[in-house]
Amino acid sequence: MENRIAVYPGSFDPVTNGHIDIVERAASIFDTVIIAVFVNYDKKPLFTMDERVEILREVTAHLPNVKVASFTGLLSDYLRQKQARVIIRGLRGVGDFEMESQMALMNKKLNPQAETVFMMASSKNIYVSSSIIKEVAKLGGPVSGLVPGLVEAKLREKFRKQADN
Amino acid sequence: MENRIAVYPGSFDPVTNGHIDIVERAASIFDTVIIAVFVNYDKKPLFTMDERVEILREVTAHLPNVKVASFTGLLSDYLRQKQARVIIRGLRGVGDFEMESQMALMNKKLNPQAETVFMMASSKNIYVSSSIIKEVAKLGGPVSGLVPGLVEAKLREKFRKQADN
Amino acid sequence: MENRIAVYPGSFDPVTNGHIDIVERAASIFDTVIIAVFVNYDKKPLFTMDERVEILREVTAHLPNVKVASFTGLLSDYLRQKQARVIIRGLRGVGDFEMESQMALMNKKLNPQAETVFMMASSKNIYVSSSIIKEVAKLGGPVSGLVPGLVEAKLREKFRKQADN
Amino acid sequence: MENRIAVYPGSFDPVTNGHIDIVERAASIFDTVIIAVFVNYDKKPLFTMDERVEILREVTAHLPNVKVASFTGLLSDYLRQKQARVIIRGLRGVGDFEMESQMALMNKKLNPQAETVFMMASSKNIYVSSSIIKEVAKLGGPVSGLVPGLVEAKLREKFRKQADN
Amino acid sequence: MENRIAVYPGSFDPVTNGHIDIVERAASIFDTVIIAVFVNYDKKPLFTMDERVEILREVTAHLPNVKVASFTGLLSDYLRQKQARVIIRGLRGVGDFEMESQMALMNKKLNPQAETVFMMASSKNIYVSSSIIKEVAKLGGPVSGLVPGLVEAKLREKFRKQADN
Amino acid sequence: MENRIAVYPGSFDPVTNGHIDIVERAASIFDTVIIAVFVNYDKKPLFTMDERVEILREVTAHLPNVKVASFTGLLSDYLRQKQARVIIRGLRGVGDFEMESQMALMNKKLNPQAETVFMMASSKNIYVSSSIIKEVAKLGGPVSGLVPGLVEAKLREKFRKQADN
Repeated sequence: MENRIAVYPGSFDPVTNGHIDIVERAASIFDTVIIAVFVNYDKKPLFTMDERVEILREVTAHLPNVKVASFTGLLSDYLRQKQARVIIRGLRGVGDFEMESQMALMNKKLNPQAETVFMMASSKNIYVSSSIIKEVAKLGGPVSGLVPGLVEAKLREKFRKQADN
Repeated sequence: MENRIAVYPGSFDPVTNGHIDIVERAASIFDTVIIAVFVNYDKKPLFTMDERVEILREVTAHLPNVKVASFTGLLSDYLRQKQARVIIRGLRGVGDFEMESQMALMNKKLNPQAETVFMMASSKNIYVSSSIIKEVAKLGGPVSGLVPGLVEAKLREKFRKQADN
Repeated sequence: MENRIAVYPGSFDPVTNGHIDIVERAASIFDTVIIAVFVNYDKKPLFTMDERVEILREVTAHLPNVKVASFTGLLSDYLRQKQARVIIRGLRGVGDFEMESQMALMNKKLNPQAETVFMMASSKNIYVSSSIIKEVAKLGGPVSGLVPGLVEAKLREKFRKQADN
Repeated sequence: MENRIAVYPGSFDPVTNGHIDIVERAASIFDTVIIAVFVNYDKKPLFTMDERVEILREVTAHLPNVKVASFTGLLSDYLRQKQARVIIRGLRGVGDFEMESQMALMNKKLNPQAETVFMMASSKNIYVSSSIIKEVAKLGGPVSGLVPGLVEAKLREKFRKQADN
Repeated sequence: MENRIAVYPGSFDPVTNGHIDIVERAASIFDTVIIAVFVNYDKKPLFTMDERVEILREVTAHLPNVKVASFTGLLSDYLRQKQARVIIRGLRGVGDFEMESQMALMNKKLNPQAETVFMMASSKNIYVSSSIIKEVAKLGGPVSGLVPGLVEAKLREKFRKQADN
Repeated sequence: MENRIAVYPGSFDPVTNGHIDIVERAASIFDTVIIAVFVNYDKKPLFTMDERVEILREVTAHLPNVKVASFTGLLSDYLRQKQARVIIRGLRGVGDFEMESQMALMNKKLNPQAETVFMMASSKNIYVSSSIIKEVAKLGGPVSGLVPGLVEAKLREKFRKQADN
């Protein structure tokens, strides 16, 4: 039996409990899961790449078969480079579905060996996204229970700094 | 590394090229795939359970790590019995999504160890479903390229018999 | 310039103002529109095929380039027989979309010369379907403004007869 | 300030924790909520009308401003009769949305004073429907936590009887 | 019976006939409706906050139980401050649904006493949104019948000024 | 029989095989098809208007009844000016549907003679959009088979220049 490597790509700006749930479940069915943080050229992220990678490493430290890395370029090439065959994506609702299916078909075309597998968000995380978390935190709202404690602290710090300026 | 067993449940009445594509892709990322044909109590199937199992065995004979079985009862119990952790489901479009996500969350509740993973239909199979195939075949239309040759022959036979009655 | 023939298939059980709106608009952009009433094998219709054809003829009598016919068999064959290239379908919402897109792609496969074109229901008809009309009429509710006067009368007659039995 | 009466119609075959959550939330924002159990002519229910009404009364006994009743005929007429202005409907996902919006617009047409208000299912109930509950219970699966204890007991009783026959 | 206060939040840039329809219908089923204009940090609005509030006051002057206010911060906090329990949101279609359901679940988490109720746009307003109105007006198209007369005049003024620059 | 003119509007930045497929099919059912490239004020395009028009002319040179033009202002006015009655739009999935139906209803209001007809993307192009093409090309990925050879060459040129800066 070969070593099954799955890549879970995303911007994780910041990682939420929804992401962590997907990682834990993916880690239970594949031999290795690489969380691959991508550079998003269009939007200025709240957290730098280094911050995102570091946070992810801390909050997944309890999962021995999970690794964290950053990547640039095409996901399909990154899979080849890592000898991975599986792309993991979480789905919260129909709204995610269209864009995700378009990307899955494109990745299949770019790398016919790549299989995208979708996992449904747990019902308790169905409304949790990085962007809604940032919006709430920016307005001073509580995000406990929706993100790891470390992220909660980092968000408070970020928005305090912004308010100071 | 443990043996990763995935179950691909469905009624397969009859199996289409869309199903076979999903099976082949699932078989490339899991160690064993069990195609689990379920008894559908509500609708009278066109093909008997025995016919469906037999057809599936023939058309997946080229895939050494694929098995075919029938099952009754809860899928969540069937997984436990087979020591499988993964449920495979194909998605063609948003219309499938709602019911599928409801079932995935229910199966998670009934068997917290079960993970449903969704795979997107290849673009060439995006409009192929067992029911549309039966409708076309019943009216005498060609279904070649959409189902395996064996299924094509069996459909012709079925509908000739019905016309004879 | 050749004669552009479009086929508008449906069960029209009964025809609604939503259907008539689509017919009128289709008749304004194609040379001939054939309303093709199909036999629906699965469901017992409220109106017989003859009733449906007769009603459609009366309510489209003001449209000189519209014809009404019944058909059995595959729509793709019917188009060939009528030398028609266009299938007209009305869309009310996302719920219609999936099934319709599946059928459009299948019809394209069965008859590569056939083009399905979709027209959006006018906003005032967006909630009008044959089945909701039958449900309301069956419970004695008013359907004026949603179906032609003739259909209103016929529905009253039908449900009075059913109540008498 | 007038007395705000809201009607929550449904077949409740059987009532789930999802329904009860909606009732409790509706009862917190309207003066009176009438749970209106309708006769569904098309499908044979698992529980009789009397059983459904009785169960609903017991499981909503803690809510002083909630009443349970059965009704036949048009919902729009029932509202007039009860001097109610509000129809409550729960939404679980996009799949419910289309049919619900069609019915809301039709009810508005039949009774321009009627307002349908939609409430979103809580995330923990997002996959709970009467039909999936019946399917699981029929196959002997546990439904605790998804329906009230009384319903759980009644379901066991129903399906034991069916198995005995 | 307590005083039922509902908050209808939005950017109203500018208010459309679709919004006014929702306000009128909400005002018929709740004791007080507060139209709460929020500061949208991300997008530069066409109308200033003061203009939007002033326009809303004029076009809702005929509704005695409707108030207009601006707010910053979290909607869930604003509800507490106003002793309101209800958030009103209009829905036009499935596209609105996903984001709205995510926000409703988040607001429930931030303020468990808050209930979001959704009202369906009337069929004649189903295609009317502030952004499509601005696009049409910017290109000199007529928007009468889609927005109040006052908004029509203000839009003409705005875009004339922009063209002058 | 009058001359049926259809307008196919879009930004075509750049044209894909999906667009060309729609053009070819539209050209087979209407007498004349005008590809109308619009100025998109909000987003900076990758290709200039002149480049887009020139590319479109070359890649549709084999279609005698297809013309290419640019336009500014309202589409509804452009149709009047060209004595066209039909707007062609391609649909890939449910995600396109909402915005497209909103625009179709608005165009009908602005020009009651205009009919928008939707054509479904062929299954092989269902995941091809100008934006995903640009994303892949920017990262150096192959887009052959998804766009005409000319566009492939132009994309390589564009992104080499950008990399040089």
